[in-house]
Formats: sequence, C-alpha cells, structure tokens
Amino acid sequence: MEVRHRTRKLYTDFNAYIRRNRKRFLIKQDPKVIWLTGLSGAGKTTIAEALEKEILRKGYFTKSFDGDIMREGINKDLGYSLEDRKENIRRTAEIAKIFMEYGSIVICSFITPTEEIRKIARNIIGRNNFIEIYVNAPLEVCEKRDPKGLYKKARNGLLKDFTGLDSEFEPPVQPDIELRTDLWPVKKCVKYMMIYILPQIKFRKKGWFRIK
Amino acid sequence: MEVRHRTRKLYTDFNAYIRRNRKRFLIKQDPKVIWLTGLSGAGKTTIAEALEKEILRKGYFTKSFDGDIMREGINKDLGYSLEDRKENIRRTAEIAKIFMEYGSIVICSFITPTEEIRKIARNIIGRNNFIEIYVNAPLEVCEKRDPKGLYKKARNGLLKDFTGLDSEFEPPVQPDIELRTDLWPVKKCVKYMMIYILPQIKFRKKGWFRIK
Repeated sequence: MEVRHRTRKLYTDFNAYIRRNRKRFLIKQDPKVIWLTGLSGAGKTTIAEALEKEILRKGYFTKSFDGDIMREGINKDLGYSLEDRKENIRRTAEIAKIFMEYGSIVICSFITPTEEIRKIARNIIGRNNFIEIYVNAPLEVCEKRDPKGLYKKARNGLLKDFTGLDSEFEPPVQPDIELRTDLWPVKKCVKYMMIYILPQIKFRKKGWFRIK
Repeated sequence: MEVRHRTRKLYTDFNAYIRRNRKRFLIKQDPKVIWLTGLSGAGKTTIAEALEKEILRKGYFTKSFDGDIMREGINKDLGYSLEDRKENIRRTAEIAKIFMEYGSIVICSFITPTEEIRKIARNIIGRNNFIEIYVNAPLEVCEKRDPKGLYKKARNGLLKDFTGLDSEFEPPVQPDIELRTDLWPVKKCVKYMMIYILPQIKFRKKGWFRIK
C-alpha cells in the first residue's frame, strides 16, 4: 500500500484547524441552521423540501431533519409530553449543531410550539447561526388541510396534547422570516426566504485556500 | 434575485434519489462506519486521529465521534450505568448512521464494553456498513498508560463501574481488524487498517455521473 508523507507538515500545528475548515473550503459555504416552526399542517415540510431543492440547486450542501424522521430513529424513546418535546428538540438541536459544524446547511422542520423550546434550540446552535422561520397559517386553514389526518384524530379524542387544540402554540416573538402559507404560493415563500438566506450562507473567502 | 429553472427537470421523479446520491457523487466515496472498541487507555483516540488524518489525506470525507465529546452535548443526560451506556451507544449509532447516509465516513471511538452493546450499534448501522476494530492492549498496559488518570481514580474508589476493573470488558468475538497497540506503533496500526478500509470506502462508480 502506498503511503505518502508529502503533506504531513500540514498536520502538525494546524491539524485541527485545517481538518475542520477543509470541509468548509471544499463545500464553500457558511453553515447555518434554518429552523422552521409552525403548526401541524402549516406547510413546514413542503416549505423545507422546496427550500432544500433551491439551496441544492445553488450548489450548496444541505441536510434536513423533521420530527417524524427523528422520532423513528434517535428519538423513538420519546413521547409528546412537554418534557419529551423539550428533549426531542434538545437532541435535534445538538445533532443539527454537529452537522452545522461539519459544514452543512441544516434545515429543521419541527412544530417547536413554545418560545421556551425554541430557546433551547437557539441556545445550543448559537444565535448567529440560527435562522428562525415562522411558517404561519391560521389554525382553521391547517385544520382544513390536515395532511396527515391528525386534527381529525385529535378532535375525536384519539390524540392528546395536540398543538393548536389542547396544547398551546405560542407564535414566535421575533422570527427572522415569517411566511403566510395560506396567502402565498410555495414559490413565493422560497423566493422570499432565499433573499434572506443566500447572503448568509455564501462563503466569503472563496478561493484563497484551494484544494485540488 | 436570480431564479433559474434549467435543472428543474432533474428534481421531479428522481428527486429524492438524486438528492441523496448527489452528495455521494460529489464526495466520491462509499460511506462506512468505523467503530473502535477497546479499554480506556488502549489507544482508541490516538488510533482514530491517526486514521482520520490518513483517510483525509487520501481525499475522503470523515467525521469522528468519541465518548467524551458525545457526553458533553447530546448525551449529557446520561451516566455510566449499563442502561445509560446502552442508550449512549444507541444514540451515537443513530447519529453515526445519519452521517453515513449523508455520505461521510464515520469514525467512532467508544469503549463499547460488551457484545450486546456492540450489537446495538451494529444493528442500527447495518452489518455491511459496520467496520469493527478491536483496539487491543492488555489491561496492565492500559493502566500503566492511564492517559486521563482514570485508572488511578477508579483504584482509589472515586469512579464506579469502571470498565476493566469493576465492570467487565468482553473482547469482540469477530472484529474485522484487531490491533495490538502494545506491540505495534501507531503507524503500523494505521497502515494495517488502511489496507482493509481503503477498498471498502473507494467509490466504484466514479465518473458516470458528473457534477461540474
């Protein structure tokens, strides 16, 4: 097996720095966590998917997380009590942070119903890297859409602690972006978000460090 | 803002497929999870760091996890009881899996003391993607090295359930690689591992799908 030591000098003092940043230079982006909050049925997943496509099309790397996927794997031991919701968000935020530090733009779609819970995520990820998007549609609209039939179940008493009905949703106090998904088509929402997001994820030191 | 729709056709039917695989094509590697198991002081972290350097030098993407880092963030709610150790490994394996599916070669350094616990990780990640490396040094050697002073603490009764002393370490039954870190220098260990690992992480369909 071929073992070359040409570049070994690189890995003495600056080892950790280079290793961490090499990924960023390769990917050429400033990693952020984009956090979508809103009621069930407000359109978080739809918006997230459309946004991810658009960001990928621009040549950036993304990673998406949403509640259902997380609850199938790492968070399958958690329920829907307030404590469990907090733990769900805490773990998700920690994982999102690992991905962000890895160089990826992370898109998280979670109801994150209260300011307290959103604060957990924001504090773990860090205010400067956290883009909070309020996916806003009135409860009546969400209930009418009811893509997963959850509102119906909750109305029939089959689901407890359902956000919007018997569990409160606090609208975000100061989201970076608010989308009215009942008034705007998805395209317009994506366009609106990209105007804000694109300058933030653009890598500013393009080209000064080149990996062949 | 400029919005082009040239590549939109790409994202209709094969959307999910392309999105998932685009990362692999860009990265050009077959993602695996390399799991280092062994006693505290056996050299897992040293080996993992040297291995990561070597894999990075070959032009691949890696992500490392080790027990101490995980316990500072996502697993800070866990202790060292058997149940908590299992949960620690379960979560780690789920995160390693997410990273692997993202296209990354993942290196995990965890004591993972019993076959049962290693099985948890192996089952989550999948046998075919799991490379088990037994970092083996006799207990006396590990205790003599004692890089973090943990053996001393444990001998003085300050640490409970310490693997190797009052908590058992079961040697892996059939590791993919066994390293004798008491006999071999780090360089030799890395060389030995790379012979096995390199053919497995090489991307085989190089070039048939090109991203500019």
